Amino acid sequence: MTPQDRVRAAFDQLALEERPEAWITLRSLEAVLADAVVVEARLAAGEELPLAGRLVAVKDNIDVAELPTTAACPSYEYQPLISAPAVQRLVDAGAIVLGKTNLDQFATGLVGTRSPYGAVRDVRDPSRVSGGSSSGSAVVVALGIVDLALGTDTAGSGRVPAAFQQIVGIKPSLGLVPTTGVVPACRSLDCVTIFARTLAEGRQAIAIMADPVWPADAPLAAPPHPIVAVPDRSELTGMSPDWLDAFEQAAKTLETAGARLRPIRLGPFLAAAKLLYEGGFVAERYAAVGAFLDTAPADVDPVVGAIITGARDIPAHVLVADTERLETLRREAMAEWGDADALLLPTAPIHPTIAEVAADPVGVNARVGTYTNFCNLFDLAAVAVPAGIGVQVITRGFADAVALDIAAMLTGVPSPGGYAGGLPLLVVGAHLSGQPLNHQLTSAGARLIGRVDTAPEYRLYALPSTPPKPGLVRVAEGGAAVEGELWELPPAALGPFLAALPSPMVLGKVGLADGTSVTGFLCETSAVAGAPDITGYGGWRSYRASR
Amino acid sequence: MTPQDRVRAAFDQLALEERPEAWITLRSLEAVLADAVVVEARLAAGEELPLAGRLVAVKDNIDVAELPTTAACPSYEYQPLISAPAVQRLVDAGAIVLGKTNLDQFATGLVGTRSPYGAVRDVRDPSRVSGGSSSGSAVVVALGIVDLALGTDTAGSGRVPAAFQQIVGIKPSLGLVPTTGVVPACRSLDCVTIFARTLAEGRQAIAIMADPVWPADAPLAAPPHPIVAVPDRSELTGMSPDWLDAFEQAAKTLETAGARLRPIRLGPFLAAAKLLYEGGFVAERYAAVGAFLDTAPADVDPVVGAIITGARDIPAHVLVADTERLETLRREAMAEWGDADALLLPTAPIHPTIAEVAADPVGVNARVGTYTNFCNLFDLAAVAVPAGIGVQVITRGFADAVALDIAAMLTGVPSPGGYAGGLPLLVVGAHLSGQPLNHQLTSAGARLIGRVDTAPEYRLYALPSTPPKPGLVRVAEGGAAVEGELWELPPAALGPFLAALPSPMVLGKVGLADGTSVTGFLCETSAVAGAPDITGYGGWRSYRASR
Repeated sequence: MTPQDRVRAAFDQLALEERPEAWITLRSLEAVLADAVVVEARLAAGEELPLAGRLVAVKDNIDVAELPTTAACPSYEYQPLISAPAVQRLVDAGAIVLGKTNLDQFATGLVGTRSPYGAVRDVRDPSRVSGGSSSGSAVVVALGIVDLALGTDTAGSGRVPAAFQQIVGIKPSLGLVPTTGVVPACRSLDCVTIFARTLAEGRQAIAIMADPVWPADAPLAAPPHPIVAVPDRSELTGMSPDWLDAFEQAAKTLETAGARLRPIRLGPFLAAAKLLYEGGFVAERYAAVGAFLDTAPADVDPVVGAIITGARDIPAHVLVADTERLETLRREAMAEWGDADALLLPTAPIHPTIAEVAADPVGVNARVGTYTNFCNLFDLAAVAVPAGIGVQVITRGFADAVALDIAAMLTGVPSPGGYAGGLPLLVVGAHLSGQPLNHQLTSAGARLIGRVDTAPEYRLYALPSTPPKPGLVRVAEGGAAVEGELWELPPAALGPFLAALPSPMVLGKVGLADGTSVTGFLCETSAVAGAPDITGYGGWRSYRASR
Repeated sequence: MTPQDRVRAAFDQLALEERPEAWITLRSLEAVLADAVVVEARLAAGEELPLAGRLVAVKDNIDVAELPTTAACPSYEYQPLISAPAVQRLVDAGAIVLGKTNLDQFATGLVGTRSPYGAVRDVRDPSRVSGGSSSGSAVVVALGIVDLALGTDTAGSGRVPAAFQQIVGIKPSLGLVPTTGVVPACRSLDCVTIFARTLAEGRQAIAIMADPVWPADAPLAAPPHPIVAVPDRSELTGMSPDWLDAFEQAAKTLETAGARLRPIRLGPFLAAAKLLYEGGFVAERYAAVGAFLDTAPADVDPVVGAIITGARDIPAHVLVADTERLETLRREAMAEWGDADALLLPTAPIHPTIAEVAADPVGVNARVGTYTNFCNLFDLAAVAVPAGIGVQVITRGFADAVALDIAAMLTGVPSPGGYAGGLPLLVVGAHLSGQPLNHQLTSAGARLIGRVDTAPEYRLYALPSTPPKPGLVRVAEGGAAVEGELWELPPAALGPFLAALPSPMVLGKVGLADGTSVTGFLCETSAVAGAPDITGYGGWRSYRASR
């Protein structure tokens, strides 16, 4: 499909669905087609556009040049001159913006009903809420109108609607995707998120939107048998037996796929969740838009207005005390977390009806956020995926790649890599996949890129070591190609790895069959005297298999 | 001198001086001597005690087991059961606590006069203030009563009194020395500091008190020619011509010692400094002790009481807005900072008299803090040293080693190393001091440990490379010792260093003459065929010198 074909298909799909409340600003077919023509011209000029012609919807608290930003409050509307970087990077990669989507006003809510543009309905059961605050974005992905949609997530707004609409919602680490050009909710806790129908599409989009801010020790992949903390059903109050069964089934799916499950108590996580709306942090919302709300605009949602203006008089010392309380809870929560690679939780405990939300707007909203509210307070990353019910894979900040890999174990569709940059390392012996020292790579967060061959300039020797390992030596003549694996390591992992490297192993540049060279394992020549030359086997694994 | 001798000498010195206001709790000679006996017993039992018998005074907002903590407010007094980790680590290293020192009440002030235990006077001119809030601690070091004293620093309390008392004051990076067991001032900004008469003593004490929290890329040393940002005198308002001259002289001293000076504008630094007392951050002080002050104890200093209780009604949204304003100023300040390794500033612009402070307690205090207030807000490290006037060497957070090294350039007495852990690396060629690639080490924050010889198992070859460099190869027989240098690198530096390493250089374990082995440069044997064997020269430098 050409970009123009994609645009026409999107408008066809749009015409089939009756969800006008999902949109705040929908661009005209002509305007969107004009963008598609531009993308086609860029392709024709030879540009590489990984998202060429992908249709994107943008939550209307994120700036898109030439479209109004309302944050679902018509009187707040302004006209941004430039797009938010998160949007611009997708457009630079070939994506085409279809329009701006509805949301819980000022991104304050998890339901999708708090908007003068209408309550956004669930795509399957219109009596139920879509989830929010990124309501419209989730719905237009679920309806197949767009490929990707941008949301934001402070309390769970990028995950709850993904759960209800049975799509993927990726909430990256705080600070990974810039929030420039986003109407702040709680500025210190806001994230830009992505909705997609597949993990692979969402992962690709986040990688394109991300700033290069990865810490040097950020893991690049989940280990093959990640430790996943899973709360017992007695910890999960307020969920129906059906949903509890579905959650347990999701945990079993992970276990079957190779994860090691471990129980965890949720006390400090749930206590922190309450701090988001019941303490001093709401003052961030007042700092963001309180001065505007104090002018008493007529189109402010009454629930949203009451929450934000109610924060006007919270004393600063209460915010200070809550910040300290949060730090205490974070330490307690991380003690519970221990050595887990991830935490598996339901995304939301219930999927309320629009009527239930109307009857108790604050209470139901709070229940919906039980398992999402704490994530940004604790600086964690999370990926929400459908798995019977909506579940989240939560990891420490900047372990986003781990969350994505474990989420892929749930969906059964691998979507590896391409998320954070690392340093390549060639291994040819005991560090190969399945070999005794491979755990040194995987426990450092390394990622397997693939199998490679060296240039035909090497000899391989079987060293008399424990565990057995080979020595690779470059020779002036008589060399051959040797099989190995290319991994990439977090930059910070290479130093300690090198410090622990025992003689006679050394690290240097190894030429590859494709003419490039990478850092890899070699061996001091003096150590191979007398060791069997096993080059003829083609590689260490073939040699070992022959023994 | 034995520990008991040291204790008697301290009490002799104490008797000579008439500064009763420096102390809040002074231990008895008998109690302190008993501690000295314990230290002697530990020494006799073979313990290594780097601070054996060193006398330490502790600011009375830091817990020492069995001594009351008052924070200079008698009615606030409590009896801690255990010492703060910062104190306990010094005691574990053989130090002996002499007593608890006076301070500006609740560490709120930079003058040393805000205490019911008396205004602490300058050691040379009793009409002037000692500086505060760590007033007593600075004075008892300056008087030669103790070797070391603990202070705290939120706005400058660990540096201003060092400046006025002409001693060393080290304010480490936020979070480096634990603040557990410290009465909070602004909890998120508080640091434990050390006063000493020499940089070397202070540096050793900080190293003992520090948590192992160094980031993997924290520099271990200043480069040999650090770039130091120095404001023009037109930027330094409110200082006398004499003090301006002295400051410029200090900058010249640095330049003579090898620093490269660069101008800097102070606008965003000074704007941030004002936020500490004139905005929402004072609410942290209310959160810490406000509930106590609301009971209106009679012994509260009126200035301190007014500052802290005045913060009771600051709205949380003002603190949020100030936090965002601070972040903007930090970005502006760091843009000014650019590629500088450090910023040189006066520690204080004036040294007021007690009468001047009494006449305008808040105004004079604010002027004193002009150049110190911003440091913790911007998460910087600082070392205050006497240099005609008191000056500070300020660095980015966790570049404490750089600040200490540059401060040592000012005092003319080197006090290298021993501050943060690194990974050792042996160099034998172009990375040696003074050789063309040495900058790759120094620019990564590496620190020279010293000259070493390899085990007698190597041959050195002159490779036909540009720049010229040698190849070190281990040989089964016929080897010799080769001269090299041992450096230590920040762990995060080793990965990129290795990634950039060109063939045929490799890194592996090299045996040293003392029987240990370290990571070091080696060379692939295949690359030395035909290269001149220069082992006979003993090392690369001797070989180059012979050319």
